[in-house]
Amino acid sequence: MPTSSETTLTPVLDRIDADLPAALDRLMTLLRIPSISTDPAFKADCASAADLLAADLRSLGFDASTRATTGHPMVLGHAGDTGPHLLFYGHYDVQPVDPLTLWDRPPFEPELQETPSGQVIRGRGTSDDKGQLMTFVEACRAWIAVHGSLPARITMFFEGEEESGSPSLIPFMRDNAAELTADIALICDTGLFDPDTPAITTMLRGLLGEEITITGPRMDLHSGMYGGAAINPVRVLSRIIAALHDDEGRVTVPGFYDGVPELSNQLRAQWEDLGFDAKGFLGDVGLSVPAGESGRSVLEMIWSRPTCEVNGITGGYTGDGFKTVLPSQARAKISFRLVGQQDPHAIRDSFRAMVQSMLPADCTVSFHGHGDAPASTMATTNPAFEAARRALSAEWPRPAAFIGSGGSIPIAGYFKDILGMDAMLIGFGKDDDLIHSPNEKYDLRSFHKGIRSWARILAELS
Amino acid sequence: MPTSSETTLTPVLDRIDADLPAALDRLMTLLRIPSISTDPAFKADCASAADLLAADLRSLGFDASTRATTGHPMVLGHAGDTGPHLLFYGHYDVQPVDPLTLWDRPPFEPELQETPSGQVIRGRGTSDDKGQLMTFVEACRAWIAVHGSLPARITMFFEGEEESGSPSLIPFMRDNAAELTADIALICDTGLFDPDTPAITTMLRGLLGEEITITGPRMDLHSGMYGGAAINPVRVLSRIIAALHDDEGRVTVPGFYDGVPELSNQLRAQWEDLGFDAKGFLGDVGLSVPAGESGRSVLEMIWSRPTCEVNGITGGYTGDGFKTVLPSQARAKISFRLVGQQDPHAIRDSFRAMVQSMLPADCTVSFHGHGDAPASTMATTNPAFEAARRALSAEWPRPAAFIGSGGSIPIAGYFKDILGMDAMLIGFGKDDDLIHSPNEKYDLRSFHKGIRSWARILAELS
Repeated sequence: MPTSSETTLTPVLDRIDADLPAALDRLMTLLRIPSISTDPAFKADCASAADLLAADLRSLGFDASTRATTGHPMVLGHAGDTGPHLLFYGHYDVQPVDPLTLWDRPPFEPELQETPSGQVIRGRGTSDDKGQLMTFVEACRAWIAVHGSLPARITMFFEGEEESGSPSLIPFMRDNAAELTADIALICDTGLFDPDTPAITTMLRGLLGEEITITGPRMDLHSGMYGGAAINPVRVLSRIIAALHDDEGRVTVPGFYDGVPELSNQLRAQWEDLGFDAKGFLGDVGLSVPAGESGRSVLEMIWSRPTCEVNGITGGYTGDGFKTVLPSQARAKISFRLVGQQDPHAIRDSFRAMVQSMLPADCTVSFHGHGDAPASTMATTNPAFEAARRALSAEWPRPAAFIGSGGSIPIAGYFKDILGMDAMLIGFGKDDDLIHSPNEKYDLRSFHKGIRSWARILAELS
Repeated sequence: MPTSSETTLTPVLDRIDADLPAALDRLMTLLRIPSISTDPAFKADCASAADLLAADLRSLGFDASTRATTGHPMVLGHAGDTGPHLLFYGHYDVQPVDPLTLWDRPPFEPELQETPSGQVIRGRGTSDDKGQLMTFVEACRAWIAVHGSLPARITMFFEGEEESGSPSLIPFMRDNAAELTADIALICDTGLFDPDTPAITTMLRGLLGEEITITGPRMDLHSGMYGGAAINPVRVLSRIIAALHDDEGRVTVPGFYDGVPELSNQLRAQWEDLGFDAKGFLGDVGLSVPAGESGRSVLEMIWSRPTCEVNGITGGYTGDGFKTVLPSQARAKISFRLVGQQDPHAIRDSFRAMVQSMLPADCTVSFHGHGDAPASTMATTNPAFEAARRALSAEWPRPAAFIGSGGSIPIAGYFKDILGMDAMLIGFGKDDDLIHSPNEKYDLRSFHKGIRSWARILAELS
């Protein structure tokens, strides 16, 4: 005899399978809107995408509307009156598309394509994040179609500024705290662990960005006339960068490791069980040797250890040919990935003091901060995590894993800090989705099984 | 009673004074031709400048013509049949003028301007090198006007590719060695020691240029996804640059100081007597402390010590804002100024081996050479040097100095190596002439006293 959960869920999953072509058409309509949030030329398109989503939610019975901000609008919608209160977050804006010449087809003319590893939806925003966002919407649509209502109280919350620094997000969350606060937030903007292994991302690194500009002589000099007598700021900057790591690959900024936890034995064992292909991960990008701290696995390096990277450096003449200039200035963009309880403000202060202490005579430095967010560690003791793990494990070939992520998704921390609610990051992207790059794609299998996964999670959580 | 030298020279100097307005007009005509050698758009202008000069020499009785090369033409002219054989070298081509917006007036519409420190001729090429070249031509013109002929056999040799790497120069010198070889070469492309102290430049540093490109991952990576596990080529490059100097400011490339002579006590004493204003020299560009090798004076640092400078560096994202890219490549342009008997080829090999030895796993380096020229030390034992010193000392408020130059003028070495003749570098430029920059100028006093100086040198050498 079928269980009550099966009698509830099975028709929803069947409906999802039957409705997949229509769901794909709906996604295509959304993908055709060039909602590039960082470029003011696409402001109206961002508004169109928000309007489309609000209208779609209303067609499902949501009390939904767009909400103006000083930037692009938010979409907010409420439905359901029983069960737990779940907030779902996704973003409808996308990255710019340049260089356009590297795209195989127009980025906003999406297409279903056959590839050796299966069908993919090709186009800007397919994976990041329109396709992922729609997995949850489609799960709700199927549930409503079968049962007439949702099994939980659901608040939809879509942002249009995620790819441009989310300037309106924190004020909007503060101003609308009562409306947004739920039992848990669900975020669909992450990936599978591997094509057969779904994942709940439970650790996200934080990020601290700093730009430093070192000035020596007050103008560019001729290296023949002044070379040897005048300080060269590129040399000074290089010495500082070289000093940021010791020979064991550890970051030397004083106090940097304050608040960096050791991995629990339990999590370490889980990660080891994942059978991560470190060799393949590095080999895909032409590398063979992990370059981080001695004695750490690659997964530790990217998920649970902090880093310091130079993201850009420039100084003097960088065009073709040669100019014997002794430059006045040298500049570097440096970022730190943070874990555990590392305090971005304390690290910024310590980094700046270290740089100051290394300046020779006649050099000055100016600093420009580029954002700071602490690391997020999800509250995996919340029973929703085990419920979601069961749901995902039922849908995919392999059991779901609790994983870390080297990247930074600040919103997870905002839900906790501003609204006091836990967040659960579940997504179906793949490492080869080319997000932020030309020819972005989303596997049709990710889209289809993503929708089914959310239906199963709704069943488990309700 | 006047000496015979005075009776010969005085009327020439008088003639120079009287003819100055006409000499200035002739220079202006030459300055109006935009003979920018590096830009193919100005090829016809370079030819026009050569034609003008050849015609002017013919009007003075020179057997003069332009000579085609694969690039811009040379100008060659011969006159005189008594006394020593002197070859005079100058160049008629000029630097590009960009950025045009920084010029106070059109660069090829020269003008005589009043300034707080006297009258200056403003325009591209005034100091480098058309104004300097014409000082010698005008001295010959005055001598011929007064005496009907020159006091020496003179070969004029004007190049049109000095500002674009002189690709035709060495082949032309080899192919025309018999016609070019003289007792000594006179080169007018240098400066005064200070406004009142004329100079004969007896030491020129050599130059070795290298561009290195370090590649780590085979494409740019996301610093969240790969940061910590993937090698960062900017860090590798910074370590290499930081290692190129020790804490005493000495260059660490193995064997770098082979062939670097200590300054003779005599030259050191002469340089000390110059009363060089090291504080002012550094202060003019916003510096206060000499940044070179410990225990060396500023004049030593720029005239007689070798250097290693980074002229440019780039890697990763260098635009506005921030991108969390972990770059695939980092690149630096590095140049070495060489002195004494330093061998540029041996240093290039040693530098490349040192860089190779510092590469970590998974990194590769490619090298691109940007020219190499050894240092030149003039044969100051040639009596012409003392004769020229006497002549210059008679014209200017202070006695002439034998000085070094931090820059590199390869032609002085070519005269020695290819034609076996000594070269003497005498020029009247000033540090504030803005050569290669917007608003280039040449002091009218430099032009006037430069012409008179050459007349005196001709008298002394004949």
